[in-house]
Amino acid sequence: MPFELPSVPFVGLDVGGTFLKGARIEGAGRVAARLHDPIARDSREALLGQLEGAVRTLDPEGRAAAIGIGIPGIVEQGSSRVRACPNLPELDGFALGQEMARRTGRPAFLENDANAAALAEAWIGAGRGSDNLLLVTLGTGIGGGVLLNGRIWPGKSGYAGEVGHIQAETSGAPCGCGSSGCVETIAGIAGWGRRAAAALAARPSSLAGKTLDPANIVAAAREGDAVALDVVDGTARALSIGIAATLLLLNLDRVVIGGGVAAAGEFLLARIVEETRRRTFPQVFADCTFNLAELGSDAGVVGAARVAMVGLSG
Amino acid sequence: MPFELPSVPFVGLDVGGTFLKGARIEGAGRVAARLHDPIARDSREALLGQLEGAVRTLDPEGRAAAIGIGIPGIVEQGSSRVRACPNLPELDGFALGQEMARRTGRPAFLENDANAAALAEAWIGAGRGSDNLLLVTLGTGIGGGVLLNGRIWPGKSGYAGEVGHIQAETSGAPCGCGSSGCVETIAGIAGWGRRAAAALAARPSSLAGKTLDPANIVAAAREGDAVALDVVDGTARALSIGIAATLLLLNLDRVVIGGGVAAAGEFLLARIVEETRRRTFPQVFADCTFNLAELGSDAGVVGAARVAMVGLSG
Repeated sequence: MPFELPSVPFVGLDVGGTFLKGARIEGAGRVAARLHDPIARDSREALLGQLEGAVRTLDPEGRAAAIGIGIPGIVEQGSSRVRACPNLPELDGFALGQEMARRTGRPAFLENDANAAALAEAWIGAGRGSDNLLLVTLGTGIGGGVLLNGRIWPGKSGYAGEVGHIQAETSGAPCGCGSSGCVETIAGIAGWGRRAAAALAARPSSLAGKTLDPANIVAAAREGDAVALDVVDGTARALSIGIAATLLLLNLDRVVIGGGVAAAGEFLLARIVEETRRRTFPQVFADCTFNLAELGSDAGVVGAARVAMVGLSG
Repeated sequence: MPFELPSVPFVGLDVGGTFLKGARIEGAGRVAARLHDPIARDSREALLGQLEGAVRTLDPEGRAAAIGIGIPGIVEQGSSRVRACPNLPELDGFALGQEMARRTGRPAFLENDANAAALAEAWIGAGRGSDNLLLVTLGTGIGGGVLLNGRIWPGKSGYAGEVGHIQAETSGAPCGCGSSGCVETIAGIAGWGRRAAAALAARPSSLAGKTLDPANIVAAAREGDAVALDVVDGTARALSIGIAATLLLLNLDRVVIGGGVAAAGEFLLARIVEETRRRTFPQVFADCTFNLAELGSDAGVVGAARVAMVGLSG
């Protein structure tokens, strides 16, 4: 083994609406300790106590150089304050970074969770070697993070990367964001279900009687079920409109598809890539590599730790 | 007047498919000399001779610190070579910057014309005070330039900013780019004409018998003609899909609408802004100011000169 730098650990916390995940990350991205607990929702004080306890559990010797925290919301730029966090409203407007720094005696850095995951994939995952990258996360919602020159592009107020709310269908379903026909209304988990249910009402399918979730729909599509294939193709088409828009605007070199639904794997990815090819200039398409995310459920904690590393390095 | 730097002039050339425009720019953007000629299309040698002559005409004393050249095509990143220039194919693959430097004895810098116009507007036009800006140019085609942190974002191969080729209509008209339903197929000049002609076939309108160009259509819409209003609204809707996509991805603080069709003025701009509001998060919309371009037909030459200034400053 060549010379290795002494390992300075960082703690990454991935604060979700349902679970708190945490890790101590050492060396070049090694997960040295892990934690996965239901999130404390009784009060902000309870949540803060849980986060503080998590840091002590993950780093009992207090060696971590800094703490990184990913949240499912928007971080105010130039501060460590939560701007908007619909799934954890007790954090809205709260200076979470400052408070966690006070409680742990270490620098603490906040970031949106999709942005943190994009940093993680670029560091040691499917984005390795790319400085200009889009991460798209497929789940209940469609999230996104944009890296330019190796850094998260937050935009003026931290709202950048919202590829899921690009309009993919002009007379589409209303979206929670106030617009309609957003990529998310089609390619989010509810969109899979809605489209499958509508198609089932008109055509026979092996999906009849099953839960209309992405896993079942992709399994049926793999077996050649026409209804299921249409739903998968519609998902790929909607996602490709957002991804192609991103590539036409930014001429990036990497797109990484992550989130729970990305478990559909190459079957879905190949369709996304083909639909994106149809909607981009040949050179823009040729410039870009499309990969499935590699870090799975570790992306959040690894990304949060990476946020702390990047933050500490200025 | 406060202290003023001694004025170092720069020459800007705006090389179009039909016209060559040029200017000597002094001080903080003052046009000190101008030139506007039909482009020499006989051969590449004729064109190069024309460009060289233009520099001497504009800067007879040879004081210019550098030459900037805007072209209606793609510039290879990290070189001064034209990568693709459909309207001036004699330049395809040609190291135009290097050749012009050799001929004029001064540093020469190349840039895509929409990118140059974006730099110009950000410098002394409708983008003043903004470092993170989208310029959309409305004409035969729909062009775009993205400025991030005050610099043009070229993307990997110089193709960034193509807001006109974002898909705005899933079953739309075929586009020259190979895709279909692009913003440009609807909001480009041909798109105005095609939609107006289709509507005229079905409904009476004061446009009957007139040339179906944006100027006539906007004039009729201002008078309340329903067919013309629908065409203007459709234009605004298509543009807003591309603009909203850009804002959702990048959370910019300024959008500037330029190009010949922007002469439709506030009447069109107000509709673009309203349609964009419907398709963006409230904070993303609130973060952004929407302006009509201010530099008109000077944007190209001022931008080209600015490219030279920025290029020289490293």
